[in-house]
Amino acid sequence: MARQARALATREAIIRGAAVVFERLGYGNASLADVAVEANVSKGALYFHFDSKDDLALAVIEEQNRISQVSGTAIIALGRPALETMILLCADLGRHLMTDPVVQAGIRLTTEAASFQPQVIEPYRDWLVTFENLIRTGIGEGDINENVAPDVLAWFIIPSFTGVQLVANVFTSRHDLLGRIRQMWEILLPSVTVPERYDDLRHLTRLVETPA
Amino acid sequence: MARQARALATREAIIRGAAVVFERLGYGNASLADVAVEANVSKGALYFHFDSKDDLALAVIEEQNRISQVSGTAIIALGRPALETMILLCADLGRHLMTDPVVQAGIRLTTEAASFQPQVIEPYRDWLVTFENLIRTGIGEGDINENVAPDVLAWFIIPSFTGVQLVANVFTSRHDLLGRIRQMWEILLPSVTVPERYDDLRHLTRLVETPA
Repeated sequence: MARQARALATREAIIRGAAVVFERLGYGNASLADVAVEANVSKGALYFHFDSKDDLALAVIEEQNRISQVSGTAIIALGRPALETMILLCADLGRHLMTDPVVQAGIRLTTEAASFQPQVIEPYRDWLVTFENLIRTGIGEGDINENVAPDVLAWFIIPSFTGVQLVANVFTSRHDLLGRIRQMWEILLPSVTVPERYDDLRHLTRLVETPA
Repeated sequence: MARQARALATREAIIRGAAVVFERLGYGNASLADVAVEANVSKGALYFHFDSKDDLALAVIEEQNRISQVSGTAIIALGRPALETMILLCADLGRHLMTDPVVQAGIRLTTEAASFQPQVIEPYRDWLVTFENLIRTGIGEGDINENVAPDVLAWFIIPSFTGVQLVANVFTSRHDLLGRIRQMWEILLPSVTVPERYDDLRHLTRLVETPA
């Protein structure tokens, strides 16, 4: 048991180290040797857990997804109305993107998918399905207008968020990300909400910068 | 003169070859040897024109920017109203992203900026400034509402477009990109337009899929 716990802790340390190295150097320039140094493990220990750089990159993406899903599930469990939940989910991922190296590296590796195989498509699909369902719920709750098909709207919000965090990273290393996410929702709300509900709902954008 | 023309043609061939290789392998995995093979030039000729892979990547980005700016300038010169011009510019870049390897690679390298130095920020800034000016003009023309500050709106449209093309690349290698750009504008228009002008302007989204 103690050995198993140690092995898990080592694996975890390697993933954190890999995240820091991928985020600093990008996938292409990172080497397994860099990761071993950053994680403070021997190359032998690293190869015991991971076969290749691809393997390591996929483990970082998987761990980022796990973190994002645990966090997202907790937000959905609050049982807030769907539109509010969507805004809180964006803010939560934004906050993780500003502070957690595993989330930073996981999202970068996902957006740089072409650098390694296979194409990383599942995280996008998970977010698209979650938002499509929330949009349907939000229509049922009378907040979201049904002029735009839920799958089409989800397919704009998720790529938009992807681009907003990417460009915020380029300009400010994401220091202004929460403000950008709030502005994204300020711009989207007139299109997304039922017009008669807009005045009641526009305050929701303030939630983005409120600690959860 | 003939020698200079030949040197320019070689340089052009190397940039095209580099674009194809970067697009296929990503920046990190691409080698100068791959580029020499793809461009059908000797490694000596390649090193005569470019010092390093970074140098080559920046040349691809520069050439993509040149192509996009020439094309964009022609669209602006049509003298259409600002909102229409914005939609045409997005459609035009989308069309290049579906067909031109230099544009594909240039945009990918720009979105994967962290893979090499320096950070690539100028292309984003150019697009932001162009759109901010068009938004101001569109407000003056009575089409675009002034509820959202022009710089803020531009800073949502450009990152959104960045994300839309990126996610379309992941899912369909951009085969559906023009449809996604049309949907982006269908979703944005109620937020972007002066409400009384919306019914007159919504047909503009059809321009995205109309050959220019």
